[in-house]
Amino acid sequence: MATAGNARGACLIVGAGDGVGAAVARAFARDGLAVCVTRRPRHLNQLEALAASIRDAGGEAHAYGVDARDEAEMIALFDRIEAEVGPLEVVVFNIGANVRFGVRETTAQVYSKVWEMAALAGFFAGREAARVMTSRGQGTILFTGATASTRGGVGFSAFAGAKAALRQLAQSMARELGPQGIHVAHVVVDGMIDGTFARSIATDIEARLDADEILKPDEIAKNYVWLHRQQRSAWTFEMDLRPWKETW
Amino acid sequence: MATAGNARGACLIVGAGDGVGAAVARAFARDGLAVCVTRRPRHLNQLEALAASIRDAGGEAHAYGVDARDEAEMIALFDRIEAEVGPLEVVVFNIGANVRFGVRETTAQVYSKVWEMAALAGFFAGREAARVMTSRGQGTILFTGATASTRGGVGFSAFAGAKAALRQLAQSMARELGPQGIHVAHVVVDGMIDGTFARSIATDIEARLDADEILKPDEIAKNYVWLHRQQRSAWTFEMDLRPWKETW
Amino acid sequence: MATAGNARGACLIVGAGDGVGAAVARAFARDGLAVCVTRRPRHLNQLEALAASIRDAGGEAHAYGVDARDEAEMIALFDRIEAEVGPLEVVVFNIGANVRFGVRETTAQVYSKVWEMAALAGFFAGREAARVMTSRGQGTILFTGATASTRGGVGFSAFAGAKAALRQLAQSMARELGPQGIHVAHVVVDGMIDGTFARSIATDIEARLDADEILKPDEIAKNYVWLHRQQRSAWTFEMDLRPWKETW
Amino acid sequence: MATAGNARGACLIVGAGDGVGAAVARAFARDGLAVCVTRRPRHLNQLEALAASIRDAGGEAHAYGVDARDEAEMIALFDRIEAEVGPLEVVVFNIGANVRFGVRETTAQVYSKVWEMAALAGFFAGREAARVMTSRGQGTILFTGATASTRGGVGFSAFAGAKAALRQLAQSMARELGPQGIHVAHVVVDGMIDGTFARSIATDIEARLDADEILKPDEIAKNYVWLHRQQRSAWTFEMDLRPWKETW
Repeated sequence: MATAGNARGACLIVGAGDGVGAAVARAFARDGLAVCVTRRPRHLNQLEALAASIRDAGGEAHAYGVDARDEAEMIALFDRIEAEVGPLEVVVFNIGANVRFGVRETTAQVYSKVWEMAALAGFFAGREAARVMTSRGQGTILFTGATASTRGGVGFSAFAGAKAALRQLAQSMARELGPQGIHVAHVVVDGMIDGTFARSIATDIEARLDADEILKPDEIAKNYVWLHRQQRSAWTFEMDLRPWKETW
Repeated sequence: MATAGNARGACLIVGAGDGVGAAVARAFARDGLAVCVTRRPRHLNQLEALAASIRDAGGEAHAYGVDARDEAEMIALFDRIEAEVGPLEVVVFNIGANVRFGVRETTAQVYSKVWEMAALAGFFAGREAARVMTSRGQGTILFTGATASTRGGVGFSAFAGAKAALRQLAQSMARELGPQGIHVAHVVVDGMIDGTFARSIATDIEARLDADEILKPDEIAKNYVWLHRQQRSAWTFEMDLRPWKETW
Repeated sequence: MATAGNARGACLIVGAGDGVGAAVARAFARDGLAVCVTRRPRHLNQLEALAASIRDAGGEAHAYGVDARDEAEMIALFDRIEAEVGPLEVVVFNIGANVRFGVRETTAQVYSKVWEMAALAGFFAGREAARVMTSRGQGTILFTGATASTRGGVGFSAFAGAKAALRQLAQSMARELGPQGIHVAHVVVDGMIDGTFARSIATDIEARLDADEILKPDEIAKNYVWLHRQQRSAWTFEMDLRPWKETW
Repeated sequence: MATAGNARGACLIVGAGDGVGAAVARAFARDGLAVCVTRRPRHLNQLEALAASIRDAGGEAHAYGVDARDEAEMIALFDRIEAEVGPLEVVVFNIGANVRFGVRETTAQVYSKVWEMAALAGFFAGREAARVMTSRGQGTILFTGATASTRGGVGFSAFAGAKAALRQLAQSMARELGPQGIHVAHVVVDGMIDGTFARSIATDIEARLDADEILKPDEIAKNYVWLHRQQRSAWTFEMDLRPWKETW
């Protein structure tokens, strides 16, 4: 979807710290968008390294240390990107907060923080994306979901609640903004994803990666680009992604 | 389910302000439980009136002005009821927060407050109920849901998100606490409920009530008592309730 | 819901062979309805024994050998009950067909027969119930579901398909017939049910029954009666039932 | 996914009569597969015209008049394609049977025929696809779903039941065959699709097509090819497709 008057449109990935966020950034950069990535300020060094690697590969990338739970920071981020980088064509919300505690062991702080990261920050990202996109009548807003988005489970009182809130946000926004030309979609990622965490707990990670038994961030990311490319006569709201050997 | 050593077991209804909460309180009082009802302190007068009417009808009732979003107040409430009234056999979480705003018109305050009322307070109620019930290996925890609990819709970014978080809390708790003897259930109430609000917006309310086209709180409440009475070989996690003429 | 002009209304249970069907028959007989039970003709002896035991307990019961997959037999059955026993207030469809085959091992005969028993027969029962009830503007139609009603699984291509078809029939009928005064509901029974089959495969059945770890037909049946008793301002379409220790 | 020893792999579309089936055939032909299309024998002329147009565009296409509800014909079809055309890499089941009747007006013939077309034929297609694909440990099986696949509605007792049975078949097969290397997916197409039927009932069809308010078969088809191309570390089981302006 071309944008008049700018060399290239912009793509914002809120939460580009794990494998998926970084892979999505690389994928949209390859697709020709100017990619803006965020993480919390204390991870700015790694985030700058990601942006540099995208630029080394010929893409455009900008790194922003942002606390996505802070409304003022988020509003300022969107304004700055629109002013300095280009009109946002794609916004991806990718902050997870996967914790597992029995309900009695879940503190108020954990319950609230998981919601702030996975739902409140998603609300800020989604609302601000809607703000800048609706006047142009186009744009794509993508939310990363998980198995817990659709079902509760032992130990998931906090996490499943937050992810379900995010999914309902996405669904409400899709119904509201679709007729205004904004494509809102929710991707349910189901299974272990290759990355630092997976490599720290799975001993046979290389063999399982060779056998495609673990989700590969680059393969996940292709589907985000695909959703953005869908022509508006046939938009997807929700799709799931899992490895072929996954039990579900 | 009888409780040894106490004249009667206790039932707590968190959020006894609207028609459903009050009706549930009356129903469990008729069922023989010592009923404890809460609302925010500023509504304590009406709450005392409810308790008095239950006592006038021969039941036992206690009123507590509580901000259910305040963890310390909630912990103290459960401790006080257990110490002064009796062991909690039933805890009902019934706080709603039905608001409708387009996503762009939803402020951070609205989004957060709806979640605090409908989800965070429910988490406190559920967790504290689990705390006092698990040592006894019995008890019933009931959550009031709504249509928005299972689907997003235009204008429901905040409300549907909070209700979905509550439903996932209930589902996670049911899977976790069921095998510990605690019956957790979620009631999806779908349709207009008779009460002050309905009477303020529906002009033909009496005719529609006569025709049973509106949910009657006393009829809803019977189902809460029914769920509590289910023998543990056949427990329900979820049931929906709607008027016969409702389109869904 | 009383029926004018008849000593008692009638209740038909299609598929009263297993524990649930028989228990539902006994429960509605105790509730004052004239119970009509069906099984295939070759099981007529056992069915007659069930009817006799209900009569011995002071109830009214009639046994009919019927192939529920045969449209003409089903139409005749409803006409005969209405003429000879009384107006049908409750119709319960309770035929299961739980088989498990890998998709490649599923024959056309198995796939078709499972559907005929679990879905086509349910359609005949539901449609004929609608035929006799809609003119009176009242009645209850209950369908027995299973875990497979809402999700597919390895080996369940045939069974899950048939049960899902039955659930959609129930949901379509509930939306269509509710506003005509007919209460249609679907009960998702999830877990092992006490009965001949369970006793043949579970070695520790008595201990598990004592611990309520297996669904007891009489407890299931109480919920069918409860659904029938719901006042029309608050009708349930769907509820699930499972033992407290069940993992789900 | 290349196939050794054959110039090209084969793709079978069962039910290539409407816009979607024909578009899917053209899309996979452009993707390099030898496309095999079926319709009932009486439509063989139109089917031959579709195959000819694909060949004119440089693709490979074969037309088969087949009653997909006939097990023997379906088995023979798969054997013939494997022998004469090439190993089947993709099988698409695309037969619909959208009818709408009140439950009382639904005849046994309608109820059965809708299931035979939408579910039984899908079972034959899916099972035979599994038969030829599992030995090779690869292949893609795609099922076309509809809104009615996931919910019943007034007038949809037959159609929603059959589509739900097909969806459960797809889900059961996905869980069973995924770990064997077969990608099974279900596409929920929600909204009016451009084609002969749409043009016969919608007066402003050209304007609505220009505005992308109606599903375009070629856009739908792209998603079928996308699903086939997904790398097995990130497979989708289900995605929905609807026009941007659709209310849902």
